[in-house]
Amino acid sequence: MSNPAKKLINNPNACADELFEGLILAYDGKVSRVGKRSLVMNKLRPDAPALLVGGGAGHEPIYHGLVGTGMADGAAVGDIFAAPPPDIVLDAAKAVHRGKGVLFLYGNYAGDVMNFDIGAELAADEGITVKTVIINDDVCSAPASEKQKRRGIAGLVPITKLAGAAAQTVDSLDELARIAQKAVDNTRTVGVSTKPGSIPATGEPTFTLDDDKIGLGMGIHGEKGVGLIPLCTADELAQKILDLLFADDLPLNAGDEIVFFVNSLGSTHMMELLILLRGARPILDKKGLKVHHTIVDNIVTCQEMAGVSFSITKLDAELKKLWDMPCESVGYTKL
Amino acid sequence: MSNPAKKLINNPNACADELFEGLILAYDGKVSRVGKRSLVMNKLRPDAPALLVGGGAGHEPIYHGLVGTGMADGAAVGDIFAAPPPDIVLDAAKAVHRGKGVLFLYGNYAGDVMNFDIGAELAADEGITVKTVIINDDVCSAPASEKQKRRGIAGLVPITKLAGAAAQTVDSLDELARIAQKAVDNTRTVGVSTKPGSIPATGEPTFTLDDDKIGLGMGIHGEKGVGLIPLCTADELAQKILDLLFADDLPLNAGDEIVFFVNSLGSTHMMELLILLRGARPILDKKGLKVHHTIVDNIVTCQEMAGVSFSITKLDAELKKLWDMPCESVGYTKL
Repeated sequence: MSNPAKKLINNPNACADELFEGLILAYDGKVSRVGKRSLVMNKLRPDAPALLVGGGAGHEPIYHGLVGTGMADGAAVGDIFAAPPPDIVLDAAKAVHRGKGVLFLYGNYAGDVMNFDIGAELAADEGITVKTVIINDDVCSAPASEKQKRRGIAGLVPITKLAGAAAQTVDSLDELARIAQKAVDNTRTVGVSTKPGSIPATGEPTFTLDDDKIGLGMGIHGEKGVGLIPLCTADELAQKILDLLFADDLPLNAGDEIVFFVNSLGSTHMMELLILLRGARPILDKKGLKVHHTIVDNIVTCQEMAGVSFSITKLDAELKKLWDMPCESVGYTKL
Repeated sequence: MSNPAKKLINNPNACADELFEGLILAYDGKVSRVGKRSLVMNKLRPDAPALLVGGGAGHEPIYHGLVGTGMADGAAVGDIFAAPPPDIVLDAAKAVHRGKGVLFLYGNYAGDVMNFDIGAELAADEGITVKTVIINDDVCSAPASEKQKRRGIAGLVPITKLAGAAAQTVDSLDELARIAQKAVDNTRTVGVSTKPGSIPATGEPTFTLDDDKIGLGMGIHGEKGVGLIPLCTADELAQKILDLLFADDLPLNAGDEIVFFVNSLGSTHMMELLILLRGARPILDKKGLKVHHTIVDNIVTCQEMAGVSFSITKLDAELKKLWDMPCESVGYTKL
């Protein structure tokens, strides 16, 4: 097979199915496969509203790696870079439903919205109430006045963690949806790209970018951001990213407590993430923000793409309590 | 600055110091900096033997990211790809010591052995008893008859987790050393490389490798392995790696329980790790091995190097009990 990226795969056109099978094994018996490409936790809290996440494959460990204890109850998995089709969404919804309805929580991409909406209609036909909360944390994908156009990126990790904790505590779908929406409303992300990943089926790059440029606000598939900037130092980049986050419509005032998430898009090394964190923290401190919890990891990726994002989630008393609950999944675990 | 790899850094010659400062921040107040480049947990079990790890920087999150609850008590951090000098080891040893001595646990590289040994002598001069357990899990770096020549690679993660759990339970340095040595004796790793990382100070590749070849058994800095093989499928590669693991001197019999760790060396994507796991598990099952716990992550890395390793740790009743204890660190966390 042609494999210029030297990916360690079998069939370039079967990557989503094969990684899905591997993921089931990675869970050591804690999840079961449902239907074609959905998974569900084996132990579910009885008589509780359910949390379902999902999206395209190729961005592992998200979304399907965020199923777990105190995280999502299940996930619907699409093909590489493609939304899960409605039948897969329906399989997942039926598997997680325990009589109290299902919250669909996913990123704002046209294909996902269309397929999850049809899945919700199919679920309704089977008597399952569905509510939807759409993740749109990507500050650079549209102005704050056009939130409905904003994409969902790395902020989905703290958002899913908070919604997953809520799903362990609330009794109604309305309450679960309210808290998940609050987590979305309180989360903002700005990402940058330095190098593309490659498409598993072809080996072709996911986008192009000059060797001396950084794509500021570029999406994880190479979607347009706010512009190209010259390659700069980590400290300069940390300032630019935080300037964009601070300029957005989420009020961030001295004394506010936050979760701060430094994410690698794939091949950007943790050394770099830590150097960026070192640059960012004095700026957060100067603004008077109190970092309650820091995450430094590669959780929202696009193959071997290079780049990073900073996500800020503002915690109020309710969200802080949910944040402090433990969780465990293939993609994110905390005590 | 010249930065062909587009690394997000500030000063190419200050990466170790700066990532170290970032790492301290990533711990959210759970660790303190000691001396030039050592860190120590703020809460330490009183009157207990201490567990100290360490090694060169640039491989994050190891080793210094394995300090944590139920993990190492502290770490001595070297420069990029360089062992920590004896004064840094001494700083760390003094900080973690609580009257019961210190276990040095690190990978078998000449520079590390020399510097940790001198550090142990300096510690002895200050009345601190030190014992040393050296990690040498890399099957392909020397024959089983010459274990003293074998390098330490990804097996250090389960080994540090087991030793960290032991450090929470045992009362003597001898007991801690005995269990850590058992974890080493029960762990084997085989790694492969497909692409080099780049050296932060120069941007130069850490080694060279033909576009159609895989370095079987190659070390994480590009050290010689057992040979070059043609690029093959994930399933074929899983078989080759497991053949080498099964051919080694660790007895693996039907019914044995293991921890199975699929590690990315940096830019190899979790999609690929999961596809490799899918290929490996039927082979483990056929041999009758029971996978007690699976880890799929990039924890032992070399910048943006591509490649993977499989590590097997055989659990007896004592190690299994230690494995099942929770742990939390920047690099590895489990409930």
